[in-house]
Amino acid sequence: MSKIDQPARPEARLPKGLFDTGAEEIRATATMLATIRGVFESYGFESLDTPAIEYSDALGKFLPDQDRPNQGVFSFKDDDEQWLSLRYDLTAPLARYVAENYQSLPKPFRRYQSGPVWRNEKPGPGRFRQFMQFDADTVGASSIAADAELCMLAADTLEALGIPRGQYVVRVNNRKVLDGVLEAIDLGGDANAGKRLGVLRAIDKLDRLGVDGVRGLLGKGRKDESGDFTKGAELDPIQIEYVLAVVQHKRHLEGGPSAKVDAWNKLLDESEVASAGFDEMDEIENLVRASGFGSDQIRIDPSVVRGLEYYTGPVFEAELTSPIKDERGQPIRLGSVVSGGRYDGLVERFTGEKVPATGISIGVSRLLFGLKTLGKIGAEATQGPVVILVLDKDRMADYQKIAQTLRAAGIRAEIYLGEAGMKAQMKYADKRNSPCAVIQGGDEKAKGEVTIKDLILGANITSTKDRDEYLKKQAEAQFAVKESELVEAVKRVLARHKS
Amino acid sequence: MSKIDQPARPEARLPKGLFDTGAEEIRATATMLATIRGVFESYGFESLDTPAIEYSDALGKFLPDQDRPNQGVFSFKDDDEQWLSLRYDLTAPLARYVAENYQSLPKPFRRYQSGPVWRNEKPGPGRFRQFMQFDADTVGASSIAADAELCMLAADTLEALGIPRGQYVVRVNNRKVLDGVLEAIDLGGDANAGKRLGVLRAIDKLDRLGVDGVRGLLGKGRKDESGDFTKGAELDPIQIEYVLAVVQHKRHLEGGPSAKVDAWNKLLDESEVASAGFDEMDEIENLVRASGFGSDQIRIDPSVVRGLEYYTGPVFEAELTSPIKDERGQPIRLGSVVSGGRYDGLVERFTGEKVPATGISIGVSRLLFGLKTLGKIGAEATQGPVVILVLDKDRMADYQKIAQTLRAAGIRAEIYLGEAGMKAQMKYADKRNSPCAVIQGGDEKAKGEVTIKDLILGANITSTKDRDEYLKKQAEAQFAVKESELVEAVKRVLARHKS
Repeated sequence: MSKIDQPARPEARLPKGLFDTGAEEIRATATMLATIRGVFESYGFESLDTPAIEYSDALGKFLPDQDRPNQGVFSFKDDDEQWLSLRYDLTAPLARYVAENYQSLPKPFRRYQSGPVWRNEKPGPGRFRQFMQFDADTVGASSIAADAELCMLAADTLEALGIPRGQYVVRVNNRKVLDGVLEAIDLGGDANAGKRLGVLRAIDKLDRLGVDGVRGLLGKGRKDESGDFTKGAELDPIQIEYVLAVVQHKRHLEGGPSAKVDAWNKLLDESEVASAGFDEMDEIENLVRASGFGSDQIRIDPSVVRGLEYYTGPVFEAELTSPIKDERGQPIRLGSVVSGGRYDGLVERFTGEKVPATGISIGVSRLLFGLKTLGKIGAEATQGPVVILVLDKDRMADYQKIAQTLRAAGIRAEIYLGEAGMKAQMKYADKRNSPCAVIQGGDEKAKGEVTIKDLILGANITSTKDRDEYLKKQAEAQFAVKESELVEAVKRVLARHKS
Repeated sequence: MSKIDQPARPEARLPKGLFDTGAEEIRATATMLATIRGVFESYGFESLDTPAIEYSDALGKFLPDQDRPNQGVFSFKDDDEQWLSLRYDLTAPLARYVAENYQSLPKPFRRYQSGPVWRNEKPGPGRFRQFMQFDADTVGASSIAADAELCMLAADTLEALGIPRGQYVVRVNNRKVLDGVLEAIDLGGDANAGKRLGVLRAIDKLDRLGVDGVRGLLGKGRKDESGDFTKGAELDPIQIEYVLAVVQHKRHLEGGPSAKVDAWNKLLDESEVASAGFDEMDEIENLVRASGFGSDQIRIDPSVVRGLEYYTGPVFEAELTSPIKDERGQPIRLGSVVSGGRYDGLVERFTGEKVPATGISIGVSRLLFGLKTLGKIGAEATQGPVVILVLDKDRMADYQKIAQTLRAAGIRAEIYLGEAGMKAQMKYADKRNSPCAVIQGGDEKAKGEVTIKDLILGANITSTKDRDEYLKKQAEAQFAVKESELVEAVKRVLARHKS
């Protein structure tokens, strides 16, 4: 046949940044999500699902321009020429939903949602173009109790997932405090927007770089271990010390007596925005303590910086504090597994009215990775099904009956459905992670018996040196029973290998 | 402010053919899917997830032409100019997955997958642009036992969902039989492709139109009740009777002695494809009977026609047989809730090699609708959370503690987080479907008490005429208890209203 007659065959491959998920991972994720769902529902949150596709303009953040919507999202035109996009988070669809159904919703409206979101970005290690989010938001509540509740929800969720008290922490800050401080120390106004961004970025690295590292980034800049230089925010020395004092839990810069500092302290004391921030943090602290949460579970931390433009009040994030190691035993920084805060602009884009809202988002993959690494979930491989081997194809009906009997007793069971011989069938059972095979040849059928083969015991038997021991083990690993005793015998073998 | 200064506000709306899903529906769906998953896993199927986005050419059925891929799917270009599409079913991604991972898979490969799929089609009643599928497929097994197993899986799944034996039926046919018959009665060959399609379409309507209706559609055509005329397949009278005999479980047209019919009967007897079809049906029947399934559960039905080009052997579909009515009490035809069959072309598109495969797909929404209508799932509304009312905003910490105490006891509980007064708070509790409110004013706090309000009993109290009865009910509907008795008292109220 000439080459031109061959139909072009597509290559079987996934686009970059996308991945398939196997049974083990699906099972572990489902177990984790069920626990999270249970805790979220115990707090009164109700689930909501929105479709993957929304009008691009309803998702916001970008608008269709001449040709196509901005980068970062997957977009395409509907047949009426309107732009559609795949959702890039679960908050933008929530805004659309709340604006569309505002009249009929209970207010405040507590909802949780989980599902995939899509980002049209360059994929990298741990960065995918489809990933899962799990969000809870309270819309229409300006009460700071709503924020306190989300911090408690984060703590309760992590404990329900098996992370004990002391091995995680929820850290709380308030964007208003930093806003007030920066204004007090002469960094307010549009002209200083760049510097403020630099300050936020520097503080965000306190965990990793320590006070001296952040001091460098607040000033001229900092050279890291590899010799790379990061330009700093270029604050003057007193500004730097002031910021460092605040992120280290001080309300003022004390010590260095200076007219400038005195004036700043006074300005900060008089700052309405800062004192609102401090009050809100006090309130959150009071509420969570009253509910029995200690400072090892939820604590105020002025160094928490979440998102740069989005949040308007309290911000919070939760981290696992036990050391986590990668496959090669190297310690890794997992980063925050839950994060959130208060934001105002939610429904305003649609209606022009401000509606207060606060929410948290769980990094599903990251949290699952943490739970697995800590042995809290899916550590043991799941047992595969019992495999009924096919000695004689004409007796398929007998084998089906055996499988059906096992299933009816709550045992996963399958017949080998391929064409290969015994050796390949055993290999198949091995690949299926099957704990046990069932065999019935013509002789056994005539005697009304089946043979049970313990595949796990059988695999270890060759290491047995002693002859008597070997024979005993062999008898345990493969034995015949009456057909009527099939279920009991299989259950006995499965029980041997239950962890 | 002039109009031009107003930012353009997007309208909060969903694109056509897409919908939001509320808590009740999500809960009912999750319950149903968990049951299905359990049965599928008991048969040895393993779950697989693939991403929503695939290369358009890997999805097949269409290829990017000049401008954009064919209709029916949502497609967009990646930044390297390759076409991407949202999956339109779960079979095409399975094909890509199997071709990509063929070497490492256990063979045969049993997998199940559930998830949304997208169709870029004109939406209509019951036709959406995003909907859920739940599939199980066995890849690499040519054994007809694999098909029999899927029929049993369908039956076991429906029974596990609460549809008793006798209220559903799995009907089985084989495309080879009809192929053989049509060839025997002079309808083979490319020239008759249109007629054959007409025959399949006519047979597909046997359920709805009866034998006489189908007879019309096989011949000149048929006028329906509204007077609309549907053109027929234009078979000649003996061909028509022959087809009708076969779909009514006869192997031959008997009775009318005619040289033509005798010749056709002989041709059909000698048809390899038809006799392979009959043999396969016999084999399925033997296998399912041996496993204990009666003909009320799984039965051969020569009138089953599934898909027009796709299937190559056994085809099957499951229907609920109890009468189902819509909201207005009108009986409705639900159609098949499970369907499937054997197909060969799965991996061939990628590798050029035929790999036998057979699978079933559950119509998730349709089945859920059927289960709901039959009262098998989600009939009773779920109880909302206990709502703690806020009499005094300064005592939020006390209320948080009450909520936390209830949650720790496994009771869903939330604090009212809005700004409104008592009356609005009661309305809120009502909207949340809350069975019970907890109230604590200053006086109660001083006495160490809380007030429990049974909202369901309270709502019915006004219908009580007798004064003593009224007072008794009132005392049951609202009462004070010591703080230490809170959990027990709330549990007592919740127990009153458990169905």
